Amino acid sequence: MEIGNYAVIFTSVLNDPAIVYHEMAEQMLELAKRQPGFLGFGSARSEIGISVSYWESLEAIQHWKQQTQHLLAQERGRSEWYQHYAVKVCRIEKAYSFQQAE
Amino acid sequence: MEIGNYAVIFTSVLNDPAIVYHEMAEQMLELAKRQPGFLGFGSARSEIGISVSYWESLEAIQHWKQQTQHLLAQERGRSEWYQHYAVKVCRIEKAYSFQQAE
Repeated sequence: MEIGNYAVIFTSVLNDPAIVYHEMAEQMLELAKRQPGFLGFGSARSEIGISVSYWESLEAIQHWKQQTQHLLAQERGRSEWYQHYAVKVCRIEKAYSFQQAE
Repeated sequence: MEIGNYAVIFTSVLNDPAIVYHEMAEQMLELAKRQPGFLGFGSARSEIGISVSYWESLEAIQHWKQQTQHLLAQERGRSEWYQHYAVKVCRIEKAYSFQQAE
């Protein structure tokens, strides 16, 4: 992930915290990885869930948003899983990291 | 959070998953909330932790990064808590959300 790439921040609250939708989430991740312009993904869930996916361009994000199976998953997300979600599409302006020495 | 605001995505892996650093994390959040240009915050942790804070401008982010108590917390983070972290500063280009009807 470099400056000029894009991050999609997906923040969500589930209808039922015990809900099982991991299978669909994993399917979507596998599918996303095969999309043109996909660069990476990370997710975590406590009271809220936060997922971040990284993409080469806005076009790649738009393409993934309109992918047929993904559209079906989005629809199911709205009707079954999510009480609330928010999406932010962002351009990476700075990036740095830290790695503990061995 | 609007288009043109900024998000800071902080992804981390702890040295010890059982580590207790919530007190410092809460202190830093309380302090961040009082900084000029702070707009919001969310965090979640599973295998990795993801925190996202939202800011009015790059200047507000830079100011917070250099805040004295925050600098001390960053130093302690590197020496004690984090095996790895990555920071991405991003400009929000698009934003939308979904809310389940009552």
